[in-house]
Amino acid sequence: MSLSIYRASIPVLVRGLKNLSHLLTKGEAYAAAKGLPASALIEASLAPDMYNLARQVQLASDSAKGCGARLAGIENPSFADTETTFADLQARIEKTVAFLQSITEAQLDGADTRQVTMKLRSGEKHFVGADYLFNFVLPNFYFHVTTAYDILRHKGVELGKPDYLGAY
Amino acid sequence: MSLSIYRASIPVLVRGLKNLSHLLTKGEAYAAAKGLPASALIEASLAPDMYNLARQVQLASDSAKGCGARLAGIENPSFADTETTFADLQARIEKTVAFLQSITEAQLDGADTRQVTMKLRSGEKHFVGADYLFNFVLPNFYFHVTTAYDILRHKGVELGKPDYLGAY
Repeated sequence: MSLSIYRASIPVLVRGLKNLSHLLTKGEAYAAAKGLPASALIEASLAPDMYNLARQVQLASDSAKGCGARLAGIENPSFADTETTFADLQARIEKTVAFLQSITEAQLDGADTRQVTMKLRSGEKHFVGADYLFNFVLPNFYFHVTTAYDILRHKGVELGKPDYLGAY
Repeated sequence: MSLSIYRASIPVLVRGLKNLSHLLTKGEAYAAAKGLPASALIEASLAPDMYNLARQVQLASDSAKGCGARLAGIENPSFADTETTFADLQARIEKTVAFLQSITEAQLDGADTRQVTMKLRSGEKHFVGADYLFNFVLPNFYFHVTTAYDILRHKGVELGKPDYLGAY
């Protein structure tokens, strides 16, 4: 028995997004408890030239929906990056999860060897599906979820590894 | 055609560790260029009660070697957590990569459905191999590699996403 690329991608990304949603819920509660404006967290970053929390969430969403769309060979939905509140960010995550959950296992049949094309600033990049998932999507997706965690933690939100990993 | 759990684990972890090594190389060069003691980075963390850079590297190593050992059903090598210099941390990564590279595809045959047991503070936790890899190992491994990146970036080291992702 071996793994399907569906198992290695869609439920993995859905799980990570739900855990990210949980981190934001704790962030919002922390801001409320401390009397901080939500922007004190949403606009926070770890270095002056690093992306802030809102952008980390948008990029986790982009990474996840782009993966689903490219592996399934369907259109990648475009979400405007206009989120400024915790409710906006939660809605962005929900939309992304709903898109991923609309993708069936059958749509990913053969996607591990499917040619995937990404448009990057440096030009087009071609991958085989499995390399795209393991060398690009998963490290990139977890980068943004983890950096969201790290920003919240750096700003004082009480989070632990179980908040990031979820129930397992 | 479908994926093997070997493809989804061993080369993924080796790749991440090599990228982590590259991040540390840039961190060491930055400290040298700025006349900082290496400890200014190695002992740095993002919050007073978060693990420092050295510990992030140790935990990335632990996550990777534990995965290889448990999926292959072989002994998990014990590495003392005594690293205090960049050279020590690089050696830790090299030992971990060498261990992972000693594991063959044949050793992971059927590992996606193999029962995996982890000893946690809260007691023993049982997983099926694929759930262990996707719900626990990969998010945890990338958490520590990304947090190492975030610590270095927070301390001023000039890193970008390509340093984290490696060539793809």
